Amino acid sequence: MQRKGYFMSDEGSVSLVLFSGTDDKLQAASVLAVGAAAMGRRVEIFLQYWALDAFRADRVLKDHGVAPEAGEEGLRAMQAQGKPHWSELFAQAKELGEVQIHACADSMEMFQITKDDLDVMVDGVWGVASFFMAADGPVTFI
Amino acid sequence: MQRKGYFMSDEGSVSLVLFSGTDDKLQAASVLAVGAAAMGRRVEIFLQYWALDAFRADRVLKDHGVAPEAGEEGLRAMQAQGKPHWSELFAQAKELGEVQIHACADSMEMFQITKDDLDVMVDGVWGVASFFMAADGPVTFI
Amino acid sequence: MQRKGYFMSDEGSVSLVLFSGTDDKLQAASVLAVGAAAMGRRVEIFLQYWALDAFRADRVLKDHGVAPEAGEEGLRAMQAQGKPHWSELFAQAKELGEVQIHACADSMEMFQITKDDLDVMVDGVWGVASFFMAADGPVTFI
Repeated sequence: MQRKGYFMSDEGSVSLVLFSGTDDKLQAASVLAVGAAAMGRRVEIFLQYWALDAFRADRVLKDHGVAPEAGEEGLRAMQAQGKPHWSELFAQAKELGEVQIHACADSMEMFQITKDDLDVMVDGVWGVASFFMAADGPVTFI
Repeated sequence: MQRKGYFMSDEGSVSLVLFSGTDDKLQAASVLAVGAAAMGRRVEIFLQYWALDAFRADRVLKDHGVAPEAGEEGLRAMQAQGKPHWSELFAQAKELGEVQIHACADSMEMFQITKDDLDVMVDGVWGVASFFMAADGPVTFI
Repeated sequence: MQRKGYFMSDEGSVSLVLFSGTDDKLQAASVLAVGAAAMGRRVEIFLQYWALDAFRADRVLKDHGVAPEAGEEGLRAMQAQGKPHWSELFAQAKELGEVQIHACADSMEMFQITKDDLDVMVDGVWGVASFFMAADGPVTFI
């Protein structure tokens, strides 16, 4: 049997539900998105809750904190690493391949914001059903 | 190539391992469960650790907090949204389709509780192997 | 239609991206790894950020905390359960089946550590692309 890399297969998209709004998780998610896009996979990203909040045009570059277990040392290591910001990596992913970013309509309503409040890299607002229809691969929740 | 929505395909269940016990993650999980059930997918939910604790009959409706990054503003937005409680959404999912909720036997032992301590919407107690046997689709960890 | 358990199918590996470094999530991940290995599935584990930090040789057995929602009661329940440490369960998984653990090269660089700083159960250091190539099944993010 020949092994076929998941991200290289033709079977379905890579679907990421972004829930968490801390910079470390957004960074990890952006690296997955870039990797998948670079390997020719279609990527569907769905922004909910605190991840959506972090994609507001006026908040993208703000400090969104990191997981509590990072500690002082982890935070310093992360800040010192000199990697591109997660927003830049998501933009790269969109340039590299077929990557769509949609905001969850329910979460938009919760924050009482409209598409104009979001960063330009967000393609639109979707209900959960639309995301599920587009997500023809497994869903990774981050 | 015709695209087939993942949640509409016949290939396997939607399997959610619920680990986190905060109200925001449980809410997000319940929305995924309702969406998948509404689209005719079989849903297997497995309750571990703090999510299991939140499904105790006498704790379901308690305040379980939210992710630290929510902040004061996020918490207020969530409380003000007037959406049904996550327990109600899970109950809706069970009415809509083939949705099973099992408690992890290891976590039950950890909390020293029995099935009688859990909300009635929990169908039973399973070992990890039983969940894996039933989970014939990818596993989303929340 | 015959149902085939996901973890028993021949279609692809079980791929776990470990991001979080708290003892409760690492414990949950190790239980999934042991379960999958016991059922004959190939398991690919990729260590990023705080999970990688927890796999440093001199930190594996340290206290890495738990999720904030655990509370005093949850923490006590977890400590009292007398289960093997997560590092022992990952070692068991490796004995049971085809389980590989790789450290993320980017995260290694962030912490400025080398393979010698990691626990012996870590098989090597991989870039994200290598992990994606090996991960021929859905990715679960923990």
